[in-house]
Amino acid sequence: MKLLKVDTIEEAKNKMDMHFQDFFLKTEKIPLHNAVGRILAEDVDSPIDLPEFDRATVDGYALLSKDTFGAGESLPVFLDVIGKVDIGKDTALHIDSGKAAYVPTGGMIPEGADGMVMIEYVEHLDEYTIAVYDSIAPGDGIIRRGDDVKKGEHILSKGKKLKPQDIGFLAAVGIAEINVFRKPKVGILSTGDELVCPGEKVEFGQIRDINTYTLSAMVEEAGGAVCYQAIVEDDFQKLTEAVQHAAKESDLILISGGSSAGIKDMTAQVIDSLGEPGVFVHGLAIKPGKPTIIGKAAGIPIFGLPGHPISAMMIFKVIVEYLLNKGFFRSNREDILIQAICDANIHASPGKETYQMVALEKNNEQQYIARPIHGKSGAISLWMKAQGYIRIGQNQEGIQKGEKVEVVLL
Amino acid sequence: MKLLKVDTIEEAKNKMDMHFQDFFLKTEKIPLHNAVGRILAEDVDSPIDLPEFDRATVDGYALLSKDTFGAGESLPVFLDVIGKVDIGKDTALHIDSGKAAYVPTGGMIPEGADGMVMIEYVEHLDEYTIAVYDSIAPGDGIIRRGDDVKKGEHILSKGKKLKPQDIGFLAAVGIAEINVFRKPKVGILSTGDELVCPGEKVEFGQIRDINTYTLSAMVEEAGGAVCYQAIVEDDFQKLTEAVQHAAKESDLILISGGSSAGIKDMTAQVIDSLGEPGVFVHGLAIKPGKPTIIGKAAGIPIFGLPGHPISAMMIFKVIVEYLLNKGFFRSNREDILIQAICDANIHASPGKETYQMVALEKNNEQQYIARPIHGKSGAISLWMKAQGYIRIGQNQEGIQKGEKVEVVLL
Repeated sequence: MKLLKVDTIEEAKNKMDMHFQDFFLKTEKIPLHNAVGRILAEDVDSPIDLPEFDRATVDGYALLSKDTFGAGESLPVFLDVIGKVDIGKDTALHIDSGKAAYVPTGGMIPEGADGMVMIEYVEHLDEYTIAVYDSIAPGDGIIRRGDDVKKGEHILSKGKKLKPQDIGFLAAVGIAEINVFRKPKVGILSTGDELVCPGEKVEFGQIRDINTYTLSAMVEEAGGAVCYQAIVEDDFQKLTEAVQHAAKESDLILISGGSSAGIKDMTAQVIDSLGEPGVFVHGLAIKPGKPTIIGKAAGIPIFGLPGHPISAMMIFKVIVEYLLNKGFFRSNREDILIQAICDANIHASPGKETYQMVALEKNNEQQYIARPIHGKSGAISLWMKAQGYIRIGQNQEGIQKGEKVEVVLL
Repeated sequence: MKLLKVDTIEEAKNKMDMHFQDFFLKTEKIPLHNAVGRILAEDVDSPIDLPEFDRATVDGYALLSKDTFGAGESLPVFLDVIGKVDIGKDTALHIDSGKAAYVPTGGMIPEGADGMVMIEYVEHLDEYTIAVYDSIAPGDGIIRRGDDVKKGEHILSKGKKLKPQDIGFLAAVGIAEINVFRKPKVGILSTGDELVCPGEKVEFGQIRDINTYTLSAMVEEAGGAVCYQAIVEDDFQKLTEAVQHAAKESDLILISGGSSAGIKDMTAQVIDSLGEPGVFVHGLAIKPGKPTIIGKAAGIPIFGLPGHPISAMMIFKVIVEYLLNKGFFRSNREDILIQAICDANIHASPGKETYQMVALEKNNEQQYIARPIHGKSGAISLWMKAQGYIRIGQNQEGIQKGEKVEVVLL
């Protein structure tokens, strides 16, 4: 029997770093079309100059800028038109002094030219002659080869969650397939003799399983895939078999319920029975979520989450996502938080990290107000009104009404 | 040939409201397990009281609170233990004065009892007798039937994007299947003789197609499904055939490129040729994104988006998502925006809505700073650094450096 020493979040993360050093997610190459929301598994350098050729950014005539010096509204210069460039086509035209060629937006700038005059400043005198009523500086209306990105330049980092604009950019440099992390496979077990599936008939005294549903949804949102789900009775043998079964296909396992120190606590014993190192965190200095277990057995991470749905959700955010993000090489430093004014005093327990669910609304000055959500213990309906949560560090005192806070959106 | 009168965003939305009155999305019933991120297609009232029975919120003994009045640390009261309640089981126990029964957290409260004493305040004298060292108020340690939610109470509204906590709540009230909107099927066509697919060989002068990729990713993020993608040459007949083909399977069509008033503009003609009412918005008072076309033909909405990737992206956010959200019965009033201080003056064009991409960072006072992102026309690399955008209304002057702004996250 191990001693039940509660770890701080910091200590728990350090232990996870140590025990889960070998938590590597496999990668897979997928078509760019399927990559939005996936996590990049490689650093990407541009394979090309972008653009790949000097390109017109306006509709007009490519010319030598010095030919137009001094030209203006009342003093045109006259140039010979030697041809036109077709969009999407190479051009053999060469612009010498006194010459010009039509180029549409996106078209290639012929050799020799160093500027574009917009069509609005051009008068067509005949098929072969234009009058230019504007003075052009070198580079006007042109984006040069490599101006946007140089070949070999670093453009995206491993661990980046791909947004539509990233996908567009990868397309622009010609990358049609990309290495992303495979979605980690997660097994989810809910323990408790009282639990039944939501669709099944409920006998008086039974409770519908919530955590399998909430945790599955959170796994998906965090970039994982649920590979195994089961409700298991509070029975050592049955829980052991379920964990062994889930471990065969899972990269990590979540067990909810059964982790408070009551008579039915057996998650820790089951994890310990399945091999070294077994449980290495038994209890966390966090509110809510104290009865949390972290262990490693059968070669994979196994988390014992509290049975209370809100506590289970918070531990998923704080502890399980920490490991997932490590596997994804992702830092959450890039997360954008909502800055708000706290609407009530929040009591914090010294030595514990405290997480408080809040609803957000705007006050008359259009500032966000974070309203702490308190419900009767066991009530979950208020929880749906929560848009996010506030974290109060373990050495921080509580929060005073009117204080500025940062809200992590849920 | 219709007159080219540019519409304001307001006017365009009004016209869309009128022409797309019949834009209804079909619904489908899906298992709750697959519902995260989907849009609810029905109002949901709770089919049950939650909890369904009076339940213990602590481990301890159910009793009559009045039996404990006056009890305390140095003055226990003694009660007869008449049994225990098993978790998940109905109970036939009845608590009279002087009696108590053990109930675990989540267990059913026996009839007669009106309070729970926590196990920590109980001493077991023998198998049938306990000493209670605490004074219990009526209702302590109990959540009553319906305290959380009453049967018939409205819990979730049509148009809600389902979050993990919503899924958990639906599970709690026993709803295992739910009506959501089918993902609208979107056809995406990119026009331009210069375009090639990112994976294909690029001839000198050609450009890789970006918009199909960006728009497909945005469609997915907005809750749609891409059903058709093609690159089409700037040819009236070919574009007409591609639109007709896409219209067979699509709920709406996006055509990017070909909507600026250049020589190759034919998107509008194609839409007009396919039936009434044809194009009803040709040009928008928005920056960027002016060359936008909105029409209806072959019975479905067809949008002509600008060829420039950033403009196409903005018009998708402002115009296409407006229609999708209408189909989903969703208001974007619930969107949470980031409040920041603008880091530079932003020039706005009178009579136009202006959208400015920004990057976010924190200053020394931990406030968010919005840094406008400007690139050479045609450059797209800076765009990836944008975390969101600022909207400047058409009657609003530009934004001064140091002014407070709200940033829509991308």
